[in-house]
Amino acid sequence: VKLWGGRFEESVTDAVEKFTESISFDKALYKHDIMGSRAHAAMLARQGLMTDSDRDNILKGLDEIERQIERGEFAWRTDREDVHMNIEAALTDLVGEPAKKLHTARSRNDQVCTDFRLWCRDAIDAIVLRIKHLQGALVKLALKNEGLIVPGYTHLQRAQPVLLQHLLLAYVEQLERDASRLLDCRVRMNFCPLGACALAGTGLPIDRFMTSEALGFTAPMRNSIDAVSDRDFVLELLSANSITAIHLSRLGEEWVLWASEEFGFLTPSDSVSTGSSIMPQKKNPDPMELVRGKSARVVGDLVSLLVLCKGLPHAYNRDLQEDKEPVFDSVKTIMGMLEVSAEFADNITFNQERIRNALPAGHLDATTLADYLVKKGIPFRTSHDIVGRSVAFCVSRKCQLQDLSLAELRSISPSFDEDVYEFLGVENAIKKFSSYGSTGSECVSSQLDHWIHKLDLSRKW
Amino acid sequence: VKLWGGRFEESVTDAVEKFTESISFDKALYKHDIMGSRAHAAMLARQGLMTDSDRDNILKGLDEIERQIERGEFAWRTDREDVHMNIEAALTDLVGEPAKKLHTARSRNDQVCTDFRLWCRDAIDAIVLRIKHLQGALVKLALKNEGLIVPGYTHLQRAQPVLLQHLLLAYVEQLERDASRLLDCRVRMNFCPLGACALAGTGLPIDRFMTSEALGFTAPMRNSIDAVSDRDFVLELLSANSITAIHLSRLGEEWVLWASEEFGFLTPSDSVSTGSSIMPQKKNPDPMELVRGKSARVVGDLVSLLVLCKGLPHAYNRDLQEDKEPVFDSVKTIMGMLEVSAEFADNITFNQERIRNALPAGHLDATTLADYLVKKGIPFRTSHDIVGRSVAFCVSRKCQLQDLSLAELRSISPSFDEDVYEFLGVENAIKKFSSYGSTGSECVSSQLDHWIHKLDLSRKW
Amino acid sequence: VKLWGGRFEESVTDAVEKFTESISFDKALYKHDIMGSRAHAAMLARQGLMTDSDRDNILKGLDEIERQIERGEFAWRTDREDVHMNIEAALTDLVGEPAKKLHTARSRNDQVCTDFRLWCRDAIDAIVLRIKHLQGALVKLALKNEGLIVPGYTHLQRAQPVLLQHLLLAYVEQLERDASRLLDCRVRMNFCPLGACALAGTGLPIDRFMTSEALGFTAPMRNSIDAVSDRDFVLELLSANSITAIHLSRLGEEWVLWASEEFGFLTPSDSVSTGSSIMPQKKNPDPMELVRGKSARVVGDLVSLLVLCKGLPHAYNRDLQEDKEPVFDSVKTIMGMLEVSAEFADNITFNQERIRNALPAGHLDATTLADYLVKKGIPFRTSHDIVGRSVAFCVSRKCQLQDLSLAELRSISPSFDEDVYEFLGVENAIKKFSSYGSTGSECVSSQLDHWIHKLDLSRKW
Amino acid sequence: VKLWGGRFEESVTDAVEKFTESISFDKALYKHDIMGSRAHAAMLARQGLMTDSDRDNILKGLDEIERQIERGEFAWRTDREDVHMNIEAALTDLVGEPAKKLHTARSRNDQVCTDFRLWCRDAIDAIVLRIKHLQGALVKLALKNEGLIVPGYTHLQRAQPVLLQHLLLAYVEQLERDASRLLDCRVRMNFCPLGACALAGTGLPIDRFMTSEALGFTAPMRNSIDAVSDRDFVLELLSANSITAIHLSRLGEEWVLWASEEFGFLTPSDSVSTGSSIMPQKKNPDPMELVRGKSARVVGDLVSLLVLCKGLPHAYNRDLQEDKEPVFDSVKTIMGMLEVSAEFADNITFNQERIRNALPAGHLDATTLADYLVKKGIPFRTSHDIVGRSVAFCVSRKCQLQDLSLAELRSISPSFDEDVYEFLGVENAIKKFSSYGSTGSECVSSQLDHWIHKLDLSRKW
Repeated sequence: VKLWGGRFEESVTDAVEKFTESISFDKALYKHDIMGSRAHAAMLARQGLMTDSDRDNILKGLDEIERQIERGEFAWRTDREDVHMNIEAALTDLVGEPAKKLHTARSRNDQVCTDFRLWCRDAIDAIVLRIKHLQGALVKLALKNEGLIVPGYTHLQRAQPVLLQHLLLAYVEQLERDASRLLDCRVRMNFCPLGACALAGTGLPIDRFMTSEALGFTAPMRNSIDAVSDRDFVLELLSANSITAIHLSRLGEEWVLWASEEFGFLTPSDSVSTGSSIMPQKKNPDPMELVRGKSARVVGDLVSLLVLCKGLPHAYNRDLQEDKEPVFDSVKTIMGMLEVSAEFADNITFNQERIRNALPAGHLDATTLADYLVKKGIPFRTSHDIVGRSVAFCVSRKCQLQDLSLAELRSISPSFDEDVYEFLGVENAIKKFSSYGSTGSECVSSQLDHWIHKLDLSRKW
Repeated sequence: VKLWGGRFEESVTDAVEKFTESISFDKALYKHDIMGSRAHAAMLARQGLMTDSDRDNILKGLDEIERQIERGEFAWRTDREDVHMNIEAALTDLVGEPAKKLHTARSRNDQVCTDFRLWCRDAIDAIVLRIKHLQGALVKLALKNEGLIVPGYTHLQRAQPVLLQHLLLAYVEQLERDASRLLDCRVRMNFCPLGACALAGTGLPIDRFMTSEALGFTAPMRNSIDAVSDRDFVLELLSANSITAIHLSRLGEEWVLWASEEFGFLTPSDSVSTGSSIMPQKKNPDPMELVRGKSARVVGDLVSLLVLCKGLPHAYNRDLQEDKEPVFDSVKTIMGMLEVSAEFADNITFNQERIRNALPAGHLDATTLADYLVKKGIPFRTSHDIVGRSVAFCVSRKCQLQDLSLAELRSISPSFDEDVYEFLGVENAIKKFSSYGSTGSECVSSQLDHWIHKLDLSRKW
Repeated sequence: VKLWGGRFEESVTDAVEKFTESISFDKALYKHDIMGSRAHAAMLARQGLMTDSDRDNILKGLDEIERQIERGEFAWRTDREDVHMNIEAALTDLVGEPAKKLHTARSRNDQVCTDFRLWCRDAIDAIVLRIKHLQGALVKLALKNEGLIVPGYTHLQRAQPVLLQHLLLAYVEQLERDASRLLDCRVRMNFCPLGACALAGTGLPIDRFMTSEALGFTAPMRNSIDAVSDRDFVLELLSANSITAIHLSRLGEEWVLWASEEFGFLTPSDSVSTGSSIMPQKKNPDPMELVRGKSARVVGDLVSLLVLCKGLPHAYNRDLQEDKEPVFDSVKTIMGMLEVSAEFADNITFNQERIRNALPAGHLDATTLADYLVKKGIPFRTSHDIVGRSVAFCVSRKCQLQDLSLAELRSISPSFDEDVYEFLGVENAIKKFSSYGSTGSECVSSQLDHWIHKLDLSRKW
Repeated sequence: VKLWGGRFEESVTDAVEKFTESISFDKALYKHDIMGSRAHAAMLARQGLMTDSDRDNILKGLDEIERQIERGEFAWRTDREDVHMNIEAALTDLVGEPAKKLHTARSRNDQVCTDFRLWCRDAIDAIVLRIKHLQGALVKLALKNEGLIVPGYTHLQRAQPVLLQHLLLAYVEQLERDASRLLDCRVRMNFCPLGACALAGTGLPIDRFMTSEALGFTAPMRNSIDAVSDRDFVLELLSANSITAIHLSRLGEEWVLWASEEFGFLTPSDSVSTGSSIMPQKKNPDPMELVRGKSARVVGDLVSLLVLCKGLPHAYNRDLQEDKEPVFDSVKTIMGMLEVSAEFADNITFNQERIRNALPAGHLDATTLADYLVKKGIPFRTSHDIVGRSVAFCVSRKCQLQDLSLAELRSISPSFDEDVYEFLGVENAIKKFSSYGSTGSECVSSQLDHWIHKLDLSRKW
């Protein structure tokens, strides 16, 4: 018999019970549900809504139930619908009458929001930890590859030389914003719905500030209807995850490309690669392919939640039960993506020699050459044009800019002087960068110091 | 040790193994994987690529494995990665050497596509069956409510009277297109990838037509790269499911509205309702709220797949492993939505009296009145204007059109005659409809006959 | 001839030019593009990279171009591809040689990011303003309807009575979080990419702190590759818009429902309603239907951007050109939705009498009755059950709880006393609410004061 | 004054008018709107609902309006809301009284559905034409590159050699399914809603079969509520476009990769490339980047429509006005993507020599070698293992399989014989493929013949 069955004469059909149950997934909230019930019972007792002895019985019962769940000995029952009813009913089985007082001045509507906010708060902390860990792994990878110049790409065409460290730190920057976005979300969600009851609050003399504080919330939510209706905290968390997932999908793409025969810039160790069931020579960077691929489900989870909430009137609608699985999936997926990316970073080797040999291709020094002409006083558009023609000349000759003689260069523009050769070639080009945030060695070194300090790492390890 | 481990010196880390495994979900393909292996073994033997005795051993082994799985006695192992490797490895444990020949001229790339197409084909059949069942339930509900007039809405404002039967049949029409969309998808997907191997086919003398036929496919796929790379059959299935889900979300919305106190048009039986943990009087149409809500995850699943496939180069990429869970979820969800909608339809009562009493409100006969004037030879735009003013007059008097005296009507337009009262009132209005597909009783009755015949139902039951 | 055409021998085909152009939409950035060029020119001059006289010519030219654009006299040219090239080329036409120096130490890659961040920053300010305006309109609507009790719903079933003010303030709370989310996004995006050049920075002696400050940014971005590659600031803005849009879709749904004949709770004025081309009596709440509907495109815009960025390697890829239209559309749409919602709020009347007459239905006082029993010392689960049975009794008798005699009540439970009638009936029920954030009159009044003060409104107006 | 203004006393506010207007985009339907009106007028006249002379006046008026629109001389007015009202009002201005009869037995609800189905039908025809054109371009590209072997990839790792022709034909296959999906959608949508009127049909003696036939529909829609409510035809079209877009995004990715310095497999001509505003040496494959990127908006458009329709009750809701822009955008975008892909295909050169030189890398013949051992009677799993070890040996020696001596091979497995060298090397490997659908020369040649015939091309051109 359902706990809400007072006015009902028939029980629901099996198909409906199966379709509407949530216990198969919302049991993941058990720890936060019990946490909330503890705070609620303590408050009810202090407010005189139950005796201290009732409270103590309830607290002992909740301890026992938590132990059972953690040991895998708790019998979750679908006919008890959800995590709240399962725990309350088990509590009643265990401690009898006092348990019937626990749901005083509480509805599943505010209870589930409280549980879910607590769960999401923990999830954010766990994700942020993994972000920091990945940032650390990227910084370490940068430290291992000091001085390594790689082609910088735009349009996947070689553009200008950059230090590998500089490129790796670009991801560290992005991850930092990802973490800060989650922390903003955490601040905004950390208000307590408990006591909003079904939607309207209650006339019983509860103390919402006491439960809010006991559960580590900033304050109780100001409006009870808002408290039980809105899922914007979930939408925001899933949005933040989606942006992180997109960042990681880009890292995945880049490393998959770089691990290809054609790029050949990096080699993952066997411990982060897999083989083929048919092609004996294959060694695939699967973890990063899956990092790229799993971004899709994080986006899909966000879309599910947006579609779910669209057009629902106030206050609670049963549709909202569907808010949990996408969140559980999104959080689990993003944590896996972050962990595996860090593990991959720890287990790749950049093929320094091959990269160095490949650098001359692509006229990576062309822009440096244009800057050279600017320094000689030539307007940028004109110098861009001169260098463009110089490159065309190289293409026709299948050579590099530094292979051109001064005479050849001067035939294109008389502004070239002997000192031009200090600007040509990838190593020279990289030396010239000096602007703040650029790929110049000193700039990158100071970026690196910033992160080592911020992430509490060390240059030696 | 992995089956592909020949060239590998280290095994993958735990985190990577956990992140990249698919056995936790792709074991759902076991039946189709075994089906494919049976066909493949039979073909290999006929083509002389294994002996008949090897084949027989393999077939026996597969039978045994299938039995074990169905009895829940099969030990799925994460270190064996996926359903294919689990079954092949277990087969090797069981029958030894012959099992090593099963993967001849086959890769997991073509194997998984074959399994997945077979699975999706079955899924389509199962969904279509449930669509037919829901259509039947709607037709039966229509038969139970012959003659019942309800307000037709546009903009959720009362527009014109319609027969409830007519409205229910609108859903039947939509579901019919949903089924036909799935069947088109089935035709397009029913081609066999087996024998495409990794991506390029093979030099071994296999017979792809034989395996294709054995598995009930129309023909083998023509291009091996296409065969292993493309997931458009999945995208199409998930698109079709999404459209069905949107249809059902609309039915859900409508029935939730109609079950409200304010509409009060229908009452679900207790067996398809649920109560509240705090408000003792509540009786909620949860199943239809969840039908509406669960449409969101079907859409989210489609988006996941679209994002997943976007921008992947040929041929197989590990990202594609992520194609399965969204499909499993979409199919399971849509089947539940269809089943529960049918069950709900079987368990609701339309409150005929309340509906009848509420009908006079909303000037549902206004358009019929405009048509009356058109029949009198007044241009429609003019008649629309006359009736508009008549309604404004009623609003100011808080009465219905049929309450106006002929004199009052004539003060608005002299074209009104005594016969106007045959066009006023909801019952009269409904009688006037005659166009094909309209809500006129005969039209609706003939629609109903169409569906009774098509769905193989009976007017009596 | 393209400005980058130095090494090119053929010009692009018409189809490619048409497909790749962005001028048809990115001209919306003209003001910010010019703003950026002004700051850049000033910096180049101070750093000695152009003369003061060149700078002055450029500034005068830019003034002239801005005037032309604002007067609609500027000739946008598709063959000049985008807003940057159009303005630079026009500047060259206007002031000649000096213009060729403007693109020194700048690429379109960092230029467009700078323009776009400036544009988005302005957009956020404009949206937040409209959010405040809508909040004000909702508070005013609340003030106009002091004391009005409406049914509170869960599952669209009547649940408990609430003050209309309380319900309206729930939306005000949600909008406040929407604004704060946008402001967090603004803080995170307000860093300057200018000077990142193509992706690697430059060797020319630029001062990025000077341009950053001139443009009102917090600081220059620390990593040049990150600066030109990432679009997370756009994804975050579109996520924030999507959440706001979902909130507004719910308001839309609620008001559309409430405007129906069946609810009949509110009547929009003619000035925010539309009619039907065929049904003369219709008066539709179209603006709120469109508010609900337009939420869809805001979500679609977000999805476009997520799909766009998924799996792109560093740094700039031409795909990113597609980042603008979804943002322009999302911002325009959300602003329209906010404006029209406020206008609708200003132009609706709540039908107080009809609402009052409808209140007895639905047993809205049942939970208050259960609390009454709790106060008598009965455990909540037991009291829930007693009231459930009382409601079932009322349903069978087609009466309200307050219609039951004390004898009847006592036949269900002996705990009922004479004072029970102070808890029955909607007015009594509403008086009992007292918890923080509840719908009790004092709580709501203090919420209202909070918002009046925060939004700088007045109780009189 | 609005044409529906009979009962209205105030006109809508400017903000509402601007927010709710659709004329800025739905004027794109003008041709189909006029087409529908012509058919409707002819029917009304034959049914005696207007005189022949009225009809003739209307037809002449419509001709004139169409001319005006096509010459850009028609004054679209926002205060006339939409394309239907603009044309009807202009018709009234032009021909007076008869125009007022045109809207007899018609509502904007069925009118817009009719227009939109006609528009979508044309759109499908236009898209399918472009699909065929792109298929033709790919086949021609294949014919130009007969015999060219390229690496086939899985996981972006070199897997097995394939003929470039084979790879190009994989896209042709996918496009063929894309076309067939659209054609299925066309069949399903080609039913006529005209005559469904607002939602319920009419009592006027119209002939829906006549208008349906005149407009080239298969039949009138059977249920008037369904006719005006459902947008599944649009969802299906946008789903089909999304799948095509995903296919093209993959082509885009592949060609962008192949155009990189690192792959270097293809070179686009200048006519389909663009340069950089800062880096003079750059030549970017922008059209294919944009093909990849623009897939995002096609997906976003689909999501918009799905979100839009979710949870709408019957019948017409104003939300549905938002159905048009995403469709217009999706259709325009997919057509551009197809056109530009074809143009790109026409303007690229495969760098045959470079590809040939790069082929030895990656052990592409490993699987062929495994098949060799299978032919010698070794079980596949064992042969896979032997070849795996052979490859590991090559990796340690930095050589290719064909570089190993027979003694070395035999030290790994005694099964190797002198004839093994016929299976080693990419050219040998490709010769061995023989299975149906494989990359063997004959199989590919017969695939090519299939397409040449099907697409009505010629081997010579």
